[in-house]
Amino acid sequence: MSASHAAVDGARVLADLNALRAIGAYKTGVHKPTFSEAHIRSLEWLVERLPTAGLTGSIDGIGNVVSRSEKAGRKLLAGSHLESQNYAGWLDGPLGVVYALEAARVINGDPGINGAVEVAAWCDEEGHFGHFLGSRSYVGAVTEADIDAARDRTGGRTMRDALGAVGLAGRKRVTAERGRHIGYLEAHIEQGETLESSGGKIGVVTSIVGIWQYRIVFTGEQNHAGTTRMAIRKDAGLALAKFCVAIDDRFPKLCGPRTVWTTGRITLDPGAPSIIPGRAEMLFQIRDDDASVVARLEAALHGMADEVNAEGRCSVAVERIRTGRPATMDTAFQRAIEDASTAFADGKSSRMPSGAGHDAQVLATIMPAGMLFVPSIGGISHHWREDTADEDIVTGAHVFVDACRRLLGP
Amino acid sequence: MSASHAAVDGARVLADLNALRAIGAYKTGVHKPTFSEAHIRSLEWLVERLPTAGLTGSIDGIGNVVSRSEKAGRKLLAGSHLESQNYAGWLDGPLGVVYALEAARVINGDPGINGAVEVAAWCDEEGHFGHFLGSRSYVGAVTEADIDAARDRTGGRTMRDALGAVGLAGRKRVTAERGRHIGYLEAHIEQGETLESSGGKIGVVTSIVGIWQYRIVFTGEQNHAGTTRMAIRKDAGLALAKFCVAIDDRFPKLCGPRTVWTTGRITLDPGAPSIIPGRAEMLFQIRDDDASVVARLEAALHGMADEVNAEGRCSVAVERIRTGRPATMDTAFQRAIEDASTAFADGKSSRMPSGAGHDAQVLATIMPAGMLFVPSIGGISHHWREDTADEDIVTGAHVFVDACRRLLGP
Repeated sequence: MSASHAAVDGARVLADLNALRAIGAYKTGVHKPTFSEAHIRSLEWLVERLPTAGLTGSIDGIGNVVSRSEKAGRKLLAGSHLESQNYAGWLDGPLGVVYALEAARVINGDPGINGAVEVAAWCDEEGHFGHFLGSRSYVGAVTEADIDAARDRTGGRTMRDALGAVGLAGRKRVTAERGRHIGYLEAHIEQGETLESSGGKIGVVTSIVGIWQYRIVFTGEQNHAGTTRMAIRKDAGLALAKFCVAIDDRFPKLCGPRTVWTTGRITLDPGAPSIIPGRAEMLFQIRDDDASVVARLEAALHGMADEVNAEGRCSVAVERIRTGRPATMDTAFQRAIEDASTAFADGKSSRMPSGAGHDAQVLATIMPAGMLFVPSIGGISHHWREDTADEDIVTGAHVFVDACRRLLGP
Repeated sequence: MSASHAAVDGARVLADLNALRAIGAYKTGVHKPTFSEAHIRSLEWLVERLPTAGLTGSIDGIGNVVSRSEKAGRKLLAGSHLESQNYAGWLDGPLGVVYALEAARVINGDPGINGAVEVAAWCDEEGHFGHFLGSRSYVGAVTEADIDAARDRTGGRTMRDALGAVGLAGRKRVTAERGRHIGYLEAHIEQGETLESSGGKIGVVTSIVGIWQYRIVFTGEQNHAGTTRMAIRKDAGLALAKFCVAIDDRFPKLCGPRTVWTTGRITLDPGAPSIIPGRAEMLFQIRDDDASVVARLEAALHGMADEVNAEGRCSVAVERIRTGRPATMDTAFQRAIEDASTAFADGKSSRMPSGAGHDAQVLATIMPAGMLFVPSIGGISHHWREDTADEDIVTGAHVFVDACRRLLGP
């Protein structure tokens, strides 16, 4: 059994995760929207614990905690996020931060390892104010103007106001020091049921899918639902429903093995029971790790729109509003996780893409990155019932720390 | 040429309609929601003019104006409404009130006619607070508890607050004196393009369709749009879209010649781009003047729902939330309008059902009722661009007054 294994303390990992669950607790989960009091207290909890792992750090001007070690040798960046979706699970985010903290506690004081783990908590991974604003700030992809423009999901509160309210206005934002890190490692719950249904204990992430998003707008003619004969109607809502059904019919013949697509929101205008909708809009999303598959599906969307427009009753416009950037996980990181699984999880690991987005895809734009998953009970995610068995959490911690050790080398 | 024809003053009718358009003007239309300042001023405008037609009346406790004549002989009730949809047309409502006022001015002072026209303006025909609250109050179908429960469309303001704000709190509501009237006559713009496209000048309404309304709720399983494979999804939104397309496919084989149906509102829950909707709801409406046709269509809805439920992926519940009561217009009233059209509109009348609801359908529950339509330019309705040619308005006034005279008899 390796030295790092002896030092990993499963009870400490579980205690830390439960301490974070107690901050902003909701049923068996948590409610910690970005910049909520519970979120800030969770960040402060982390900052207070950094010295026990040989690290220094504070909350920066966008709500990230990025820590530094003065130990000589290689540096591995590791972490995840501490805010949550509304009324969501206790592990989505904290698991990766606590694993990173545990790795730092085990490795940074070990003179036998020529390097250190530096812990990070990225702000707003859950997108209350935008897309990966914290990790994107760290890699240099967020301008002050981007922050000026950011508002919460309801459009009600600006990010500037939120930063001011928690005392972060005017603080410097920490950005990556190029060349400092050999890479970034993140652990997360799987959020699906692949591991559970196959008996796996560790998911070795091969890639993180890109998210392409479209606004599809149908224009017909608003009219009276009583006096307008069926034959002359131009019902934008019906055109939208037919389009959804056509997607359901055609996409399976064109998609890749793991493509997913979702219509998450539909709006009919004016939305009154006695008025034929003159305008209808759908938010449509495609996720894949293969951009060429999405290009094929996007071409199909445009082809279907052309057919609607040619028919002449309603017109439809397909607008891409978000372009996916699939991220490939570094092969050396995949191997390190797999080797650690052989050592500490009876080899029960399997390679898989991540259908959810993670900060690792942002970090991957400037350094090698890797991710590992632990099983989600029933695949439940973004719900307070989200959970993982304690023994799977502890196994994951052992694998994570061992993978860090393997990556830092002797 | 008859005596009443000589007395009808087309310029006066147009001047009155334009005076009402000036109150709450919006572009070439009006914006007069129920209990808005412009609506109340329009009611006061009417009350002030009643004495010129041998009538007395005031605004009652629900916002109706119902007037009385002391002239001996038969009494015919006539009118329409003075509030409007938001940012809507100038004639939808005022046309019928001004025609009734003109008929009263012509007839009530004529000793050669054994009777009088009594003018009414019914509150909230446009349904800002409910369904036909004004005319239903008059026929005795609205309780104080109904008024307590009424709220505006946004749910933000109670009807009690609105009544209080315009000084109507505590006023008595006028109800029908049974046996007083030989019936009720109402004129309205057609709101469709049947008259215009056929060169007709007067629509003789045979029936007013009933409106059946349904809340159709689909239940699936809310889940992550990235980590949930297509094969195991229970997407309530997709189930809804398929249902809409199935209605579009099956209803034409089952409907009557003039049935119309509309999905006016769709809501996906939670309505986020990255979440598979676990619940989806549609507001669905059927209009017909034949309840047996609607019974057939409703059975089809339930049959389709059974198929979805049997398939097992999502469940669907069809709930009727409004039951239509089609109203037949009195045949003597239809004949009087037709005869008046022969005399004053070159016989260019045609019989037609009304696809829109009107106060006449409520009055028809307690007395004989009739309706006549004038052409709508382009069939446009519930929009500020709604309009009717001046000469068609004047022709309609002549036909309306002559029909009143024929109904009251010598």
